[in-house]
Amino acid sequence: MGRREQKFWGWGEPGASPPLSEKVEGFLRSAFGVDGGVVSRPASLEDVVLPPCELSEAARDRLVAIVGEAHVRQDRATRILRATGKSYLDLLDQRSGRLDAAPDAVVAPGSAGEVQAVLDACSRARVAVVPFGGGTSVVGGVAPQRGGADAVVTLDLARLDHVVSLDERSRIARFEPGVRLPEADHVLGARGYTLGHHPQSYEWATVGGCVATRSSGQASTGFGRIDEHVVALRCATPAGELSTLAVPASAAGPSLRELLTGSEGTLGVLIELTLEVRPVAEVRRYEGWVLGSFAEGAEVLRELAQTGLAPDVARLSDETETQMGLALAGTGSLKARSGVSFLRARGAGEGSLLITGWEGGAQDVGRRRAWAARRLRAARGRYAGRATGEAWRAGRYYAPHLRDHLLDRGVLVETLETATTWSNLERLHGVVGDALRSALDTRSLVACHVSHLYGSGASLYFTVLAGQDTAEPAAQWSRAKEAASRAIVDCGGTITHHHAVGRDHAAHLPSEVGTLGIDLLRGLKDRCDPVGVMNPGKLLL
Amino acid sequence: MGRREQKFWGWGEPGASPPLSEKVEGFLRSAFGVDGGVVSRPASLEDVVLPPCELSEAARDRLVAIVGEAHVRQDRATRILRATGKSYLDLLDQRSGRLDAAPDAVVAPGSAGEVQAVLDACSRARVAVVPFGGGTSVVGGVAPQRGGADAVVTLDLARLDHVVSLDERSRIARFEPGVRLPEADHVLGARGYTLGHHPQSYEWATVGGCVATRSSGQASTGFGRIDEHVVALRCATPAGELSTLAVPASAAGPSLRELLTGSEGTLGVLIELTLEVRPVAEVRRYEGWVLGSFAEGAEVLRELAQTGLAPDVARLSDETETQMGLALAGTGSLKARSGVSFLRARGAGEGSLLITGWEGGAQDVGRRRAWAARRLRAARGRYAGRATGEAWRAGRYYAPHLRDHLLDRGVLVETLETATTWSNLERLHGVVGDALRSALDTRSLVACHVSHLYGSGASLYFTVLAGQDTAEPAAQWSRAKEAASRAIVDCGGTITHHHAVGRDHAAHLPSEVGTLGIDLLRGLKDRCDPVGVMNPGKLLL
Repeated sequence: MGRREQKFWGWGEPGASPPLSEKVEGFLRSAFGVDGGVVSRPASLEDVVLPPCELSEAARDRLVAIVGEAHVRQDRATRILRATGKSYLDLLDQRSGRLDAAPDAVVAPGSAGEVQAVLDACSRARVAVVPFGGGTSVVGGVAPQRGGADAVVTLDLARLDHVVSLDERSRIARFEPGVRLPEADHVLGARGYTLGHHPQSYEWATVGGCVATRSSGQASTGFGRIDEHVVALRCATPAGELSTLAVPASAAGPSLRELLTGSEGTLGVLIELTLEVRPVAEVRRYEGWVLGSFAEGAEVLRELAQTGLAPDVARLSDETETQMGLALAGTGSLKARSGVSFLRARGAGEGSLLITGWEGGAQDVGRRRAWAARRLRAARGRYAGRATGEAWRAGRYYAPHLRDHLLDRGVLVETLETATTWSNLERLHGVVGDALRSALDTRSLVACHVSHLYGSGASLYFTVLAGQDTAEPAAQWSRAKEAASRAIVDCGGTITHHHAVGRDHAAHLPSEVGTLGIDLLRGLKDRCDPVGVMNPGKLLL
Repeated sequence: MGRREQKFWGWGEPGASPPLSEKVEGFLRSAFGVDGGVVSRPASLEDVVLPPCELSEAARDRLVAIVGEAHVRQDRATRILRATGKSYLDLLDQRSGRLDAAPDAVVAPGSAGEVQAVLDACSRARVAVVPFGGGTSVVGGVAPQRGGADAVVTLDLARLDHVVSLDERSRIARFEPGVRLPEADHVLGARGYTLGHHPQSYEWATVGGCVATRSSGQASTGFGRIDEHVVALRCATPAGELSTLAVPASAAGPSLRELLTGSEGTLGVLIELTLEVRPVAEVRRYEGWVLGSFAEGAEVLRELAQTGLAPDVARLSDETETQMGLALAGTGSLKARSGVSFLRARGAGEGSLLITGWEGGAQDVGRRRAWAARRLRAARGRYAGRATGEAWRAGRYYAPHLRDHLLDRGVLVETLETATTWSNLERLHGVVGDALRSALDTRSLVACHVSHLYGSGASLYFTVLAGQDTAEPAAQWSRAKEAASRAIVDCGGTITHHHAVGRDHAAHLPSEVGTLGIDLLRGLKDRCDPVGVMNPGKLLL
């Protein structure tokens, strides 16, 4: 585990979040009726209560024989750090110091061969295996569930953190699964390339984790979802290795690559990933626009997407999110107080803020930007300057840091997301928002943005803030989440556009793929993982 | 079967092919040592020898009860017309009048519900089902194989030929599987849209067949492969219906949509397809360029593809194909004799011909074309005019018509295709060409073009002509095909980039997806089709 680690009870390294301004504390007081000051502190590492280790000596010996004594860890700190992901519910558990589940051991293989040997050994010993990359799941994807097995180990991919090769001619690179996105971009950057994948979890997420969960990045409108970057995969499963051919496209039957992508560790462990890369952008241009309304903004984004000339980043906040952004300015997403006045003068107080970003060659960016600007002006969009765009870019990974501050102050904060066709977008935006507002009390804010554009539709990303029910905070959110999930399913949206299924959406997958769909996924799992040790309780219930 | 039909022994409707010029006959004489005149005529319909019908009365009655007496056909003409696809080996069988296999009946359901009922009935009665769309397979995809079943019926999707709906806002349309591409474009065209999918089989191929076989079109570089257009699918299987959600993208687990795409009728029958559509192009610009060599041409195409500004159609012939094109000018691909002189003057006699095509808004086409022209000129490309491009466009569906003339004259003619990374393209081009030339005699021509560009690589499409071994023409081609397939597999190419697997590539699929990959595909089939009646002998052996 010799690499950077997040604090066990929140996001990022200790001390990485700037303090909260008094202005924001005032906003929290007025919006949610909370005190505004710190009312809750996370438990200290020493106070965390952990379940006992239940890995048998024999199983432990076999794992040690494969990866070495130093890489089978059972100390408290390691188990705690690998016990959860980073959802709101995870944070409640972490902060409370009560972890009902933790891995019985954390095993860190040093090669693809060791991964395969660990899976073989665990399958024989009936030990569940939870693959762990960046640990940033917000859907319970790394929860150390045992399923029907006798024990559970977390398979930490931290040591498999190399960029194996770069084929500049074909613009593809091979990665080990555990390389984090910033480190991948650093290595590629030395030769002028980048992966170009920027989820909000960028600072911590791994290449393998992104592919295993069908991640989207903030620039996926322009650069494509991670699944569009995947050229080939190697996956170790208890039934042996499955690998796909590194070709740009094929008509050779159903796509096994598309089966491994999004398999969330339930079939096996991705041990090597061949992905498309791109040259580091020559220029970047990020800017803000204010549209008259969310509906007007969505309409112009649809036009941009359907002409194939959408910005690489396109992020349209609804009216609530726009106002919330103004209120929270100074906390990362919009830095400058002066920027707020500037935006208010442009009508952001009643309208919808759009962030657009272009990256690429200077000529290309100039041309695409000029075209979009014409369309935006024709749609009565008011230009809100590069400072607005750059402020967003500077704070693009900030929200999960802010979340820790909000939890300190007794504020519920969580996000959820979906996608649908353009025809259905406004309706879905309405029903999910209504479901969340009804399920919470009146002192809540439900904000939303469109963040990924396609020719046929777009994603919707909701952020929910509310005064926390301090007696039963988990139940409070679970009710709201369930109401939102039902609304999404009933309205024809996907249960997840980029957070994946994990544990938390598994109950809703049958609504999306049907009984036969579940049966097919189950059949795939039975063949790859006959004993059922791979990431139990995720994807399939 | 009330719609247009191809002649049973060749391509297209009777009389649709223009006669062959004397110039071409002369070329065939000099190139392959054949007579040049017609030496072989296809059998007449009356002389075709068919195996007897073996469908039980009970099974027939059940099918009649579902689709009606008129739609369970067992007459000779119908059985002959549904007995094969359109590969060279198929044509040899058809022309010889000896069909070793034919469907015991041809069943034409009139609704999705009838398809499901037919599959249920056939599964119970142990009758194999071969889905039949346009019948244009060149890999044995519609061969009426019985597998372990007691009889085989061809499921003719001709009556399911409607465009169900068009959502202009989301730019998606729903199709029944049996609608042919020209008819689909005709219906969409009335509202200003098109599917934009143009395989060489365009005149006959169906929407369902294209998706079931992961088809690519001639404009797939710009408009995407058919699998990139698929938004949602409904598939009837013996185990019930599988349907996927109509959303632009999802992170909800492995993609079942990508399992049905390319399933080639082995899991079930696609009964409804939701695909992206696009506006009919405002302008089109097709033109020719002559590059110094195939390698130089491939290099500039790589650059165009990797900057995201490739032409929508990009088709680079190697030196052999360029020369063959000049020799065959006047037969469809290059109309005018004067064009030949023009091209020779531009160095095409030694170089490599590139056809580029752009379609879209006037401004967009102008801009993209100007950019590509600059890059092509920088790569020492010589402009060969719009007439060259328009001649290609006018003859883009002609090659399979020409094939019938060549067979009449005792010439072997067949194509095969693959794809690989840019790094591996030149090597693959060399080894496959060598394998084909060695396996055939010296009087053969192996021509090739790059036809689909991706950021990471491209496809290679080989056309083979040779003097036919009139004693054993099938064995002659089978040897060459096997040599090419081995070369492709050994060199890391995909066994098929757009013809699909069918019967003819099934033996090579294990090389591509491995033992576990085959086992997973087998597992999927077992669950969808437990009795094993769906298109036996295709995809999986």
